[in-house]
Amino acid sequence: MNYLLTFAYQGQAFYGFERQKGKRTVQGELERALTALMGEEIHIHGAGRTDAGVHALAQRANFHAERSVEKASFLYALNRLLPPDIFVKEVEEVPEAFDARHNAKKKRYIYRFRYGERDPFQNGLVGQYTYPHFDEDAFRDALSCFQGTHNFQNFTSKAEDPHGFLRTIDEVEVRIDQEKKEGTVSFLGNGFMTYMVRLMMGAALRAAAGKWGKEDIQDRLNEEKRHIFSLKAPAGGLYLAEVFYE
Amino acid sequence: MNYLLTFAYQGQAFYGFERQKGKRTVQGELERALTALMGEEIHIHGAGRTDAGVHALAQRANFHAERSVEKASFLYALNRLLPPDIFVKEVEEVPEAFDARHNAKKKRYIYRFRYGERDPFQNGLVGQYTYPHFDEDAFRDALSCFQGTHNFQNFTSKAEDPHGFLRTIDEVEVRIDQEKKEGTVSFLGNGFMTYMVRLMMGAALRAAAGKWGKEDIQDRLNEEKRHIFSLKAPAGGLYLAEVFYE
Repeated sequence: MNYLLTFAYQGQAFYGFERQKGKRTVQGELERALTALMGEEIHIHGAGRTDAGVHALAQRANFHAERSVEKASFLYALNRLLPPDIFVKEVEEVPEAFDARHNAKKKRYIYRFRYGERDPFQNGLVGQYTYPHFDEDAFRDALSCFQGTHNFQNFTSKAEDPHGFLRTIDEVEVRIDQEKKEGTVSFLGNGFMTYMVRLMMGAALRAAAGKWGKEDIQDRLNEEKRHIFSLKAPAGGLYLAEVFYE
Repeated sequence: MNYLLTFAYQGQAFYGFERQKGKRTVQGELERALTALMGEEIHIHGAGRTDAGVHALAQRANFHAERSVEKASFLYALNRLLPPDIFVKEVEEVPEAFDARHNAKKKRYIYRFRYGERDPFQNGLVGQYTYPHFDEDAFRDALSCFQGTHNFQNFTSKAEDPHGFLRTIDEVEVRIDQEKKEGTVSFLGNGFMTYMVRLMMGAALRAAAGKWGKEDIQDRLNEEKRHIFSLKAPAGGLYLAEVFYE
């Protein structure tokens, strides 16, 4: 049997998604709980690897098992075996060949940030903007550059990629709450490389501070030559929000 | 000079409010930052000691200093020296004899809980109710018992108290969001002993589960004999919300 899980996690206390020896990871915790519950060794295949401190609202992963599961009791028991910062919402049977990573068509990431006073209850859950002035128009302008198909080689830490650096971002949606001085940016796209969302957000927040113009972003986007810079927005503001399958 | 601070903290990563050698505490972090900022050794006097994992929306503490402070630059600099889980909102000069603890007339604590599915993003920020059924009427009924002046000796871990065990709770306010399956209880009173709010909440949540009736609470409240029981609701749901001075 092949099962697809949908789950949320608060990433603050994890060394990222992927299993690592001797580290607390989301994959490690899920595999431990699933192996205990199923009575057979379970390995999961995640739709995407999130970094340390990054959250998920609806991450997906599939696993193969000999035993079949009854949904309600499986979810109840699994959640009792999991730590309080992971919660499995859904399980469904999928065809044998289905793979949560390879079959993913699109993903949505959201980035939450605050540009007002620090809120200790949002610590690790938003990116805190620290420049004195937030220029909303410059911020929206900067983000609009990323929409469409571009060579994102300067917006990832990867030096090379078997698929090249072309990716398509279908939609960048910006929501700003001027009263609370906080905002959310949603990115829907067909592939996100390492640090890609955090580098786009870092560039846009730099534009909001008046440190970069739209042209600085355009210069770096689609550039032929690799041009290293690092403006990663903090991990805590990033959420894997949705994974889409056909 | 004597200054009164108003500050918030997310209590999850602290061993409580009070300074303890070799432990990360709120008092320890504040004194470290204040001493660095003021260039003189600063000790603070908190309005109340919160336990490990307990939060504050508006805790108060006073401190004496040789130097005087300019409010805006003091708050800016102090918050830069503090870790992201503490935020100082206000500073005001108070008379030399003012003490944040002894001059406090009333306090408001709130307790947040969830009786629906676990939410990993609320982990450590609410008390999670784990019984299958939540009886709202029984819960409200149970809480109404605490209003007024009572001998709370069975609702504290203290074996004795120089002021005795009589305390007055002026107001218990219950708000339930049936859709989100979460709630908040606000307790306004003239004094709260160790674990008092968590023991009242533990009893009320037990009543909501049908495990206790109102009479079980009334039996333990005002009882002449000390009757040990422990039903402390989790620390993470508790917030010191307000401290009132004359």
